[in-house]
Amino acid sequence: MPSATARLADLVLPPPARPGDLLAAIATPALVLDLDAFERNLDVMQAAADAAGVALRPHAKAHKTPAIALAQLQRGAVGICCQKVSEALPFLQAGVRDIHISNQVASVPMVELLAQMGRHGHISVCVDHAAQVVALGRATAAQGSTLAVCVEIDIGQGRCGVDGADAVLQLLDTLVAHPQLVFRGLQAYHGGAQHVRAPQQRADVAARAAERTAAVVAALAAAGVACGTVTGSGSGSVEFDLASGVYTELQPGSYVFMDADYGRNQVDGALRFHHSLFVASTVMSVGSGERVVLDAGLKSLAVDSGMPLVWQAGAPSTTLDYAAANDEHGIVRPRVAGGARPALGSQLLLVPGHCDPTLNLHDHLIALRHGVVEAVWPVAARGLSR
Amino acid sequence: MPSATARLADLVLPPPARPGDLLAAIATPALVLDLDAFERNLDVMQAAADAAGVALRPHAKAHKTPAIALAQLQRGAVGICCQKVSEALPFLQAGVRDIHISNQVASVPMVELLAQMGRHGHISVCVDHAAQVVALGRATAAQGSTLAVCVEIDIGQGRCGVDGADAVLQLLDTLVAHPQLVFRGLQAYHGGAQHVRAPQQRADVAARAAERTAAVVAALAAAGVACGTVTGSGSGSVEFDLASGVYTELQPGSYVFMDADYGRNQVDGALRFHHSLFVASTVMSVGSGERVVLDAGLKSLAVDSGMPLVWQAGAPSTTLDYAAANDEHGIVRPRVAGGARPALGSQLLLVPGHCDPTLNLHDHLIALRHGVVEAVWPVAARGLSR
Repeated sequence: MPSATARLADLVLPPPARPGDLLAAIATPALVLDLDAFERNLDVMQAAADAAGVALRPHAKAHKTPAIALAQLQRGAVGICCQKVSEALPFLQAGVRDIHISNQVASVPMVELLAQMGRHGHISVCVDHAAQVVALGRATAAQGSTLAVCVEIDIGQGRCGVDGADAVLQLLDTLVAHPQLVFRGLQAYHGGAQHVRAPQQRADVAARAAERTAAVVAALAAAGVACGTVTGSGSGSVEFDLASGVYTELQPGSYVFMDADYGRNQVDGALRFHHSLFVASTVMSVGSGERVVLDAGLKSLAVDSGMPLVWQAGAPSTTLDYAAANDEHGIVRPRVAGGARPALGSQLLLVPGHCDPTLNLHDHLIALRHGVVEAVWPVAARGLSR
Repeated sequence: MPSATARLADLVLPPPARPGDLLAAIATPALVLDLDAFERNLDVMQAAADAAGVALRPHAKAHKTPAIALAQLQRGAVGICCQKVSEALPFLQAGVRDIHISNQVASVPMVELLAQMGRHGHISVCVDHAAQVVALGRATAAQGSTLAVCVEIDIGQGRCGVDGADAVLQLLDTLVAHPQLVFRGLQAYHGGAQHVRAPQQRADVAARAAERTAAVVAALAAAGVACGTVTGSGSGSVEFDLASGVYTELQPGSYVFMDADYGRNQVDGALRFHHSLFVASTVMSVGSGERVVLDAGLKSLAVDSGMPLVWQAGAPSTTLDYAAANDEHGIVRPRVAGGARPALGSQLLLVPGHCDPTLNLHDHLIALRHGVVEAVWPVAARGLSR
């Protein structure tokens, strides 16, 4: 008996993968990244932002992975966005010192942590209510720290944000009482615009959102308030927002991975991204009948935006559908009755329906080049939703 | 400036909660457990199993929390089920020495880990293909360990499992070549039966599944093969499976928590369970219009089985609906136009649509008694899907 396993306390999970491992040999389910597609996506987005003279501040809520944020900064990103305060901490500690929290902060302990973080980097946060300004003012005063503040405006999504320039001006009246809080500008984001399928309709929704944003900026200017930053956009509308002249800073996140839902957007323009993110899965049962069962279900794949796509041999399968997800099972069926089924033990790659909550299920992202593991990156902000 | 935060490396996330904290004061989103309801659920299920003379082996895939498994064992459970090999390790190391892996194991590294675990407890696993038996046989031979094996039969779910007694007998022919593998009996589980809403229809589906199981057991007996264990059932069908006389062991998991989906099952009988699991959430934006925005979305709540239910003041809200989930936002609307909205900063409790994948999003479960934190339990098997 091997002595290393003689004691129960010494029994440990094997590492998810090691550099040099073949994709085909790793334990599944496993979250894997095609580095060639990933790096191309990063390069294409940075080049587009550079060409338009607009700052790129990619959203780290999509990847939660400091190694990816550092790769984005290396290419020219001015910083990152995070959606939550706790989410930002591993990035700050990994060396990302310019972080925008693209959200309001509700919990008192998180306002306090944010104020502490303000002592260690250029940190900004959104507000859409005077009570939030007061809470941030108190916490920064107690810490002796500084935070930048963006007022979020609602440009058609109907989620967070105030309506119109007068509401912004009212919030700025509260802000001036707190000298540790520096007005950075506006956040103007329209989530719904990202997923409109037809390019012209998506362009129209993005244009209306940009017009609403521009109107607020103009009204503030007329009132003597300059918006140094107008931050917004996402991976679906970025091709239009780049050209709008309204946004000074872009927040796309999913372009890094391109999930199955974004893949359903039709694209006319030159700005194209490719699937780089997959969940590697193994056929664990061939049962009887017209199905096979994969080892990846709801606990490995987010299905809120639809079922994953099956890939085989480096391309979308034209014969297999992932039909249903149970907790730890995925049911795959041939598209045509009697069609060929993959054998027990075969590995299939799945393109997740929605990348952000899928990343949030995994502790490691296995970076591959041509089917060989190059690195294993901790998804260090996984689960940090406070 | 407090010296503890002077260095960035010293900055740490605050603990999710401390014993004695008030629920109203904890940072959200947070996964919380009402201990009174939880303990009642555990007691009711154990008493029902004891009264029927059937072994209770609760499914730990629902809770992933060793503290809960130990509470189940303390009440008389014979062991636990896990769905994955990696998931079982923290339970084994916490002192749970009788674990059934209610699933086939596909990845070679996990077969090897399972064989190692076989040296430290009574471990069983499912098979539905001869290749799985051969792989388990090789791994246990290499480890000098023993595993118990259940043959899974398909009793109507159409997922894993072989069809009928002849297929079981064929697998047993392979099994006898591996003396380290001990035949334990059958696994017969029908997931679809759990969620049939009307009691009589659910009873009918469970009865047909039990009949299929009984027919295989009888045919095996006629062939001279005794099934020491027939393991199956779940929280939806358990009231019928208890009385069937077919199952020697029950595997319910969700009864511990009772999620919103199970809450939609109508119940005629005496076996009733109550919601004990909630995600505590805070109103982070009151925006404009007819909505408020909560800080808990897709990354804190699984929505595969529907949106969460809103609770206020210890009871289901009759006025508010959780209408939509974004990654880190939940949109809550009054049921009636113009209805009252909770104030900015208010805390709401949400009953998750599906407990299992919701637990899998959280690192800690905060156990409460009458609104005061009694313990913070690590969800030690969270994310362990291999």
